[in-house]
Amino acid sequence: MTETVTAAMIVIGDEILSGRTKDRNIGHLAEMMTAVGIDLKEVRIVADDEDAIVEAVNALRERYTYVFTTGGIGPTHDDITADSVSKALGVPCEHDEKAMALLAEHYARRGMEFTEARQRMARMPRGAEHIDNRISIAPGFHIGNVYVMAGVPAIFQAMLDAVVPTLKTGQKLLSVAITCPYGEGVIGGPLAEIQKAHPDTIIGSYPKYRDGSFWTELVVRSRSQEALDAGRVAVEAMLKDLAHAT
Amino acid sequence: MTETVTAAMIVIGDEILSGRTKDRNIGHLAEMMTAVGIDLKEVRIVADDEDAIVEAVNALRERYTYVFTTGGIGPTHDDITADSVSKALGVPCEHDEKAMALLAEHYARRGMEFTEARQRMARMPRGAEHIDNRISIAPGFHIGNVYVMAGVPAIFQAMLDAVVPTLKTGQKLLSVAITCPYGEGVIGGPLAEIQKAHPDTIIGSYPKYRDGSFWTELVVRSRSQEALDAGRVAVEAMLKDLAHAT
Repeated sequence: MTETVTAAMIVIGDEILSGRTKDRNIGHLAEMMTAVGIDLKEVRIVADDEDAIVEAVNALRERYTYVFTTGGIGPTHDDITADSVSKALGVPCEHDEKAMALLAEHYARRGMEFTEARQRMARMPRGAEHIDNRISIAPGFHIGNVYVMAGVPAIFQAMLDAVVPTLKTGQKLLSVAITCPYGEGVIGGPLAEIQKAHPDTIIGSYPKYRDGSFWTELVVRSRSQEALDAGRVAVEAMLKDLAHAT
Repeated sequence: MTETVTAAMIVIGDEILSGRTKDRNIGHLAEMMTAVGIDLKEVRIVADDEDAIVEAVNALRERYTYVFTTGGIGPTHDDITADSVSKALGVPCEHDEKAMALLAEHYARRGMEFTEARQRMARMPRGAEHIDNRISIAPGFHIGNVYVMAGVPAIFQAMLDAVVPTLKTGQKLLSVAITCPYGEGVIGGPLAEIQKAHPDTIIGSYPKYRDGSFWTELVVRSRSQEALDAGRVAVEAMLKDLAHAT
């Protein structure tokens, strides 16, 4: 039996909590994790606040295989993720030599000043390793099981592309979606019976509402193809029975 | 000085964590809270798992003025929010009489059977009060400072419309956004100085990336109009200085 690999995500940023910026990273990470067989178990969105970040990092890194953070690694005063992660891990936060060299060269090549603000982007917990950033050079980093990435979606996605091939992945969760023309009130009873009879599946029911009427998306999930097929057949039989009855 | 009113949100649902469904409720709640002067401090997305829901409800209801949940109150076996919230609060979860009557009448009027599955939607923690649902009748509920609402966005929004006028609200956080043509590396230093000189404001810097170049949205926030104006003037002066320098 393959190990279950789990993950949590911490989205850092006042701008998400104020509604000013709509997060686009949660859905992307969720899809990537599902694709490679890692169970995303929890997401927390916290403010640009050291105590809040430290608490979330420490709660989640103990509990899950991987913790991914987004946001707060830029050059401004409200970018406090590197300091907060260092504090959570009990290591000093310092200018990383390799990152300083990388950024110094990058700005020199473009004839731009390597300001103190820009130097902030080279700060990392001592012992951290870089996560490549092919978009804007300034690297993310990981230390232990904590992966610290940018909040700007294009950069986050590039960093995640660099990270995913290095992760141990679990047995992929297979799934099949079945469109159901009935609302949950109709299928709730029989579907609960099917779930009971198929313990190796996780059957989800997602109500959809459009133009005054309900329909449902049913999703059967399993790590076994055989169990998945058996669950799907049972759900389809239920829908046929309901079609005859109505 | 007006009291600071705070809130947290718990989004309940495997379908969000798998990436199958993209959440649309966080941004809406965040905007509504900002509009009425309530500080949304934290959001957690958790699985359809009793322990996870209980832990999140208990952690957050102690800490914030209000806790809002979305998802998991439909009629199917994976809808376990009412049970989990009851467990968190240490009260029995039972069929609420008023909700049973409401739903019985609703289905009778439409000539539909009031199935056992549909009756699940009337289950609430003992002592809970209804949150009206003008879309699909089945009510949400609140008990203490915990507000339990639907996950389907149209229904969530209708329920939130019913809830917001009943909340105590804080002094509204005023804000002004200033478009800045420079990246954070340019403004990081002077902006940190402005933040230091204007302690009654919260100045946020949000990097934007498009077509290979960076710009920044700067947001000055304050509960005082005077402090806000002073912060805005300082930021605009910084931008003018930079324009002269380049």
